[in-house]
Amino acid sequence: MRSLGIALLGYGGIGRVHALGYRAIPFHYGLPADAVRLVGVATRHPQTAERAAAEIGCPVWTTDYRQLLARDDVDAIDCCLPNDQHEEVVVAAAAAGKHIYCEKPLAAGVDAARRMVAAVQEAGVLTQMTFNYRFFPALLQAKQLVDQGFLGRVFSFYGRYYRSSYTDPQKPLTWRLRKDASGGGALFDLGSHVLDLVYWLLGDFAAVNATLETLVKERPLAPGSAEMGQVDVDDLALLQLRMAGGSLGTVESTRFATGAVNDLLLEVYGERGSLRFSLGDPAWLEVYDAGDTTLRGFRKVETVQRYAGQKAPDWTAMPGFVRTHTECQYQFLRAIWDDQAASPSLADGLAVQEVMDAACRSAATGKWVAIDAPDVNPETSP
Amino acid sequence: MRSLGIALLGYGGIGRVHALGYRAIPFHYGLPADAVRLVGVATRHPQTAERAAAEIGCPVWTTDYRQLLARDDVDAIDCCLPNDQHEEVVVAAAAAGKHIYCEKPLAAGVDAARRMVAAVQEAGVLTQMTFNYRFFPALLQAKQLVDQGFLGRVFSFYGRYYRSSYTDPQKPLTWRLRKDASGGGALFDLGSHVLDLVYWLLGDFAAVNATLETLVKERPLAPGSAEMGQVDVDDLALLQLRMAGGSLGTVESTRFATGAVNDLLLEVYGERGSLRFSLGDPAWLEVYDAGDTTLRGFRKVETVQRYAGQKAPDWTAMPGFVRTHTECQYQFLRAIWDDQAASPSLADGLAVQEVMDAACRSAATGKWVAIDAPDVNPETSP
Amino acid sequence: MRSLGIALLGYGGIGRVHALGYRAIPFHYGLPADAVRLVGVATRHPQTAERAAAEIGCPVWTTDYRQLLARDDVDAIDCCLPNDQHEEVVVAAAAAGKHIYCEKPLAAGVDAARRMVAAVQEAGVLTQMTFNYRFFPALLQAKQLVDQGFLGRVFSFYGRYYRSSYTDPQKPLTWRLRKDASGGGALFDLGSHVLDLVYWLLGDFAAVNATLETLVKERPLAPGSAEMGQVDVDDLALLQLRMAGGSLGTVESTRFATGAVNDLLLEVYGERGSLRFSLGDPAWLEVYDAGDTTLRGFRKVETVQRYAGQKAPDWTAMPGFVRTHTECQYQFLRAIWDDQAASPSLADGLAVQEVMDAACRSAATGKWVAIDAPDVNPETSP
Amino acid sequence: MRSLGIALLGYGGIGRVHALGYRAIPFHYGLPADAVRLVGVATRHPQTAERAAAEIGCPVWTTDYRQLLARDDVDAIDCCLPNDQHEEVVVAAAAAGKHIYCEKPLAAGVDAARRMVAAVQEAGVLTQMTFNYRFFPALLQAKQLVDQGFLGRVFSFYGRYYRSSYTDPQKPLTWRLRKDASGGGALFDLGSHVLDLVYWLLGDFAAVNATLETLVKERPLAPGSAEMGQVDVDDLALLQLRMAGGSLGTVESTRFATGAVNDLLLEVYGERGSLRFSLGDPAWLEVYDAGDTTLRGFRKVETVQRYAGQKAPDWTAMPGFVRTHTECQYQFLRAIWDDQAASPSLADGLAVQEVMDAACRSAATGKWVAIDAPDVNPETSP
Repeated sequence: MRSLGIALLGYGGIGRVHALGYRAIPFHYGLPADAVRLVGVATRHPQTAERAAAEIGCPVWTTDYRQLLARDDVDAIDCCLPNDQHEEVVVAAAAAGKHIYCEKPLAAGVDAARRMVAAVQEAGVLTQMTFNYRFFPALLQAKQLVDQGFLGRVFSFYGRYYRSSYTDPQKPLTWRLRKDASGGGALFDLGSHVLDLVYWLLGDFAAVNATLETLVKERPLAPGSAEMGQVDVDDLALLQLRMAGGSLGTVESTRFATGAVNDLLLEVYGERGSLRFSLGDPAWLEVYDAGDTTLRGFRKVETVQRYAGQKAPDWTAMPGFVRTHTECQYQFLRAIWDDQAASPSLADGLAVQEVMDAACRSAATGKWVAIDAPDVNPETSP
Repeated sequence: MRSLGIALLGYGGIGRVHALGYRAIPFHYGLPADAVRLVGVATRHPQTAERAAAEIGCPVWTTDYRQLLARDDVDAIDCCLPNDQHEEVVVAAAAAGKHIYCEKPLAAGVDAARRMVAAVQEAGVLTQMTFNYRFFPALLQAKQLVDQGFLGRVFSFYGRYYRSSYTDPQKPLTWRLRKDASGGGALFDLGSHVLDLVYWLLGDFAAVNATLETLVKERPLAPGSAEMGQVDVDDLALLQLRMAGGSLGTVESTRFATGAVNDLLLEVYGERGSLRFSLGDPAWLEVYDAGDTTLRGFRKVETVQRYAGQKAPDWTAMPGFVRTHTECQYQFLRAIWDDQAASPSLADGLAVQEVMDAACRSAATGKWVAIDAPDVNPETSP
Repeated sequence: MRSLGIALLGYGGIGRVHALGYRAIPFHYGLPADAVRLVGVATRHPQTAERAAAEIGCPVWTTDYRQLLARDDVDAIDCCLPNDQHEEVVVAAAAAGKHIYCEKPLAAGVDAARRMVAAVQEAGVLTQMTFNYRFFPALLQAKQLVDQGFLGRVFSFYGRYYRSSYTDPQKPLTWRLRKDASGGGALFDLGSHVLDLVYWLLGDFAAVNATLETLVKERPLAPGSAEMGQVDVDDLALLQLRMAGGSLGTVESTRFATGAVNDLLLEVYGERGSLRFSLGDPAWLEVYDAGDTTLRGFRKVETVQRYAGQKAPDWTAMPGFVRTHTECQYQFLRAIWDDQAASPSLADGLAVQEVMDAACRSAATGKWVAIDAPDVNPETSP
Repeated sequence: MRSLGIALLGYGGIGRVHALGYRAIPFHYGLPADAVRLVGVATRHPQTAERAAAEIGCPVWTTDYRQLLARDDVDAIDCCLPNDQHEEVVVAAAAAGKHIYCEKPLAAGVDAARRMVAAVQEAGVLTQMTFNYRFFPALLQAKQLVDQGFLGRVFSFYGRYYRSSYTDPQKPLTWRLRKDASGGGALFDLGSHVLDLVYWLLGDFAAVNATLETLVKERPLAPGSAEMGQVDVDDLALLQLRMAGGSLGTVESTRFATGAVNDLLLEVYGERGSLRFSLGDPAWLEVYDAGDTTLRGFRKVETVQRYAGQKAPDWTAMPGFVRTHTECQYQFLRAIWDDQAASPSLADGLAVQEVMDAACRSAATGKWVAIDAPDVNPETSP
């Protein structure tokens, strides 16, 4: 198993989590410490890049990510940049033959996302999205049950992601609140996680009926500034979704749920059983088996230490947020080692991008909008 | 305080609950046993009427409700009939000068509902809807907080009522599954409760964007019958709602949430605070006070034995379903004794009927439908 | 089925609950209204007795309970008096050939309790204790599982009853705080409920190791009074218990659990499975089946509308406190109608009294105290 | 801030967690990667030592821990060996002038523990116990509230640690089941965590009344072996505890709570407020403020991202098990850098050892046993 070199592009909060994830992999999967090498880091400013390299303990830092793409000892890049910068670096990395690990959402707009998938497909590199929530053991268990037909016909589903991060109207107009940089608001930042889980568990989207709302329409351009700018993304997104498989459901995301810390729910109701997951209690999957008529009730299923891979130190009821990233990253490296398609891939990221784009069009017109299945060649799908 | 005579019209499951409620009132409010008299009961068949009278311990039974309307010792009627029979008896009772207590929803259709409100308004009788869920102490506490401005500007809300009562496709086509008799399905039966709570707490509805779905489209006409009939009501109703006050939210109701027993949730998120209620844990209101920055978190507020009226035997953490009916009925009697408007009135029932009717039209067209505030004269509003 | 006449002895808060329970029985069990008659009520003061009779709607009131015992139309008495008055009325009622329904604990002292059981045994009347918590559907389900051998060998158990009713040191020295009147404090008032549940599910007690603590040692003799009296009962009781069947466990009761409203827990852990019940969520029994190794987890079992008797209006997830009394009372009446032993009987009340007495002796000596199985003749056990 | 060199003694499951913790520190606290160096690892067998060194990425491995003590580039040792091997290595490390980080419980017996504390005290090295549960943000918040007098007089407390790890009677007789190697069973392994939390929050123990039970008395000497050995440690430990500060409580630990995964509870009830923590929901502290009489109820306080140190990637509601170790280790390193006493120290470990020893003596005699405060010189306390 050859040693893999990673270049980190971007080192904000989430970049730091990824860096820690790579360092944790040997301990969770029983690998030699040099199975994965952090070769270098690129950020916009020299000071932050240098400090990042010291923290990571990697030899190289730069403000020009192309220097990292040019290195032979870099096998893959990890993109933790703002949404609107994903396209450039992903396309360049694909052209350089580097495998690609990319934070969600895939891009700030669906056109960019399509170009990115086309580029990686053409280059034939392996790709993976940071849809880390898929890797909670409880959700891995859910996926297994769904794939085994446990639910039977799916009647309906419900998903939410509520946070309260923007209720303060004095919070300034950062890139997450500007459509050109982020592509969208609560829908893109939070909803993308839930939409990916729905897509992963229930398959392709067929149509969406969405309402988007901006609750605070103007914000200071900078902290404490009197100069105000227009917020052009949603603070609250309500989606009704019809799946290609026939089921119907609701997905909500908001950054204005006062008091909510990190309130993600996913529930699926089927003819043979039902599943419920809550990020507030992430070690468990609630499972209802309609066939079990003697002692009827939702079972709070133990899913701890049930990662797909090797047994890990998280044997207790507390898998933690960092751990889901570590697993997501490990699956990417595993795919490279095994030279097999990674999952969730950038094509999966595009599927989520398509439904978010359709939701924006639905909200603009007040009508249902149909969603075509992404036009990707499954043979060569990255 | 004069003794009030009640005539029960209908004696199915819910009629029995009402009868027990009247019998329980003296114990809960410290009244003489004859403060409320159950004068008589009317049902369709003589046998059921006679058995009902024996169980209730009332002297009179009949299959013709008009005999009860003709009695001087009847002050009020209590209507527990199927939805499509409400109009006839309510209009007749109003004409007979009887006060009216009526199960929800008000009618099978909005036109009937409008005629009923006009009739009771003209007759000047007191009226009350059985929106019993309002009378959980936790929700009385919620109302008080909302009225005190605890929430500030309301950002959004979420309500659901999930049950699993119709997942069996062999369950026959009862009146609840026929639009002519019931007016609607999950929306009318379950959604009406949640819509009333939203209306009560947040005021008038402005517009609705609804999707209705019939999940099992044909059912046996009778248990075990091979003859099938068309289900023409919804099994699943997804509503996006905009309130006149500016807030936006989702209300869902389904009879196909496999494993759900009685899963009603109501959550309201405002700039100054938030509220959460769950029928699965009905003795508590979860309250978040955004102004409290030292120990931030949802508080599980004790609301037991906090009925508006006199202290009652329900001093423990278990108010129970029957108790909410008893309180709702007591408020009606109280209004008669005090000669003041009762609440929730039939006009409130009409407000819920209007939004349900608009939801049906929205679902048929796939568009948002505006809702006019009910055109009732507040001076003489029943 | 002959009509049964009941005499109520005592009409405080719990007497009122019992009266309502009798009135509710016809509706819950489909019986004629006169299946149970409330003949009369006796209290200490004429005014309270007269007001009670008006509220109950019964013809007779008195300050001398013997007048009620003398009546032929009284089949049974219901004793809701303070603990130290139980013996006199129960012994007198037995002598008068009346069946006996008695609030817990059976007596203020174990000697009185033994005499009472001897008296009812000799008289051959039917008796029942108000251990109403047994009649939560969730606990009826637990009993059924235990009796079916679901748990296998029982390893351990845990029970608690926490309330916060006496944390205010200015709360005066009522009869519940005086040993001569109550027999004990948190142990007798709250612990007796848990001990009965343990006894019912797991059988006879073998030994107890108890610590009792009085947290507020002096209280005003009357509200606001400067004159103080000694509290000679426990505010907090910690028990380690060994059962005749071999299992070991803890039972705690306190009236000083600040913030606890009505926090009763019962958990039993066995080799084949486990059970958990919480009064804060009383519609559910949590069940773990160790034999189910595919989806391991506690199941939150639906127990609503699962009363042993006829289907009742409590079809929702909210059985309520009053409902458990109604069921307990119904089982007593059922026993009279069927002329069969009632359960829980006064002999069961004595078993609880014996363990409480042993706990007091253990606390006084700091040692384990063995408990003899109550010496009652099972042939003639009341 | 000088770079610190660590030697790992032992590399089982918990040693791996510690190693990962050291690697994670730079990312959580914004330190250079070489702020902490993993110099070497010692295990019993050469193969495991070599593999550990490869996984850790450290240059040195050995089967003789003294080689690590002899190195100048080792500043501290981290002891993850079985309980009965702690004394030898800790005393040797102290003699070599190394700072000491030690897994709990401190020793297999109280005499060894006392000698260890004497040795480190004499050597003047800094020491820290792995009482990692203290470092859940929720418990750090609890400690702060207790220290601020939030509870007022403490009435009582309750703690448990339930697991189900030994219910299988075929599980062989490992070192954790032999008193000579482990010192005790559920009490030492699980109870020690809870006892440390009680000690940390409420101060010195005064006396204990304990019952210890071995539920499976014989086990195979090896997996599948027919040869059986005697289990001489407890499977279940029930403790009643009296604190020097006057409060009274229960602490339970068991490895036979069928269905329990990792069920640690801690509750403290005081005159002014109460606190509740559950390891099953570790991101929250439930707080009841008795002074807040308008909206009474337990508040589920957000404690995420509230570590005492620098802000960390765990900003979501999922701090995770590994994270608590990382924080505990960081506090140790911080103490070395600042040349200040570390906490929890080995003297704190001794306090827990003393109460466990007293519990064993209490269980043997069936009586309360008084506990002397550990005789350590606070001036030089390690």
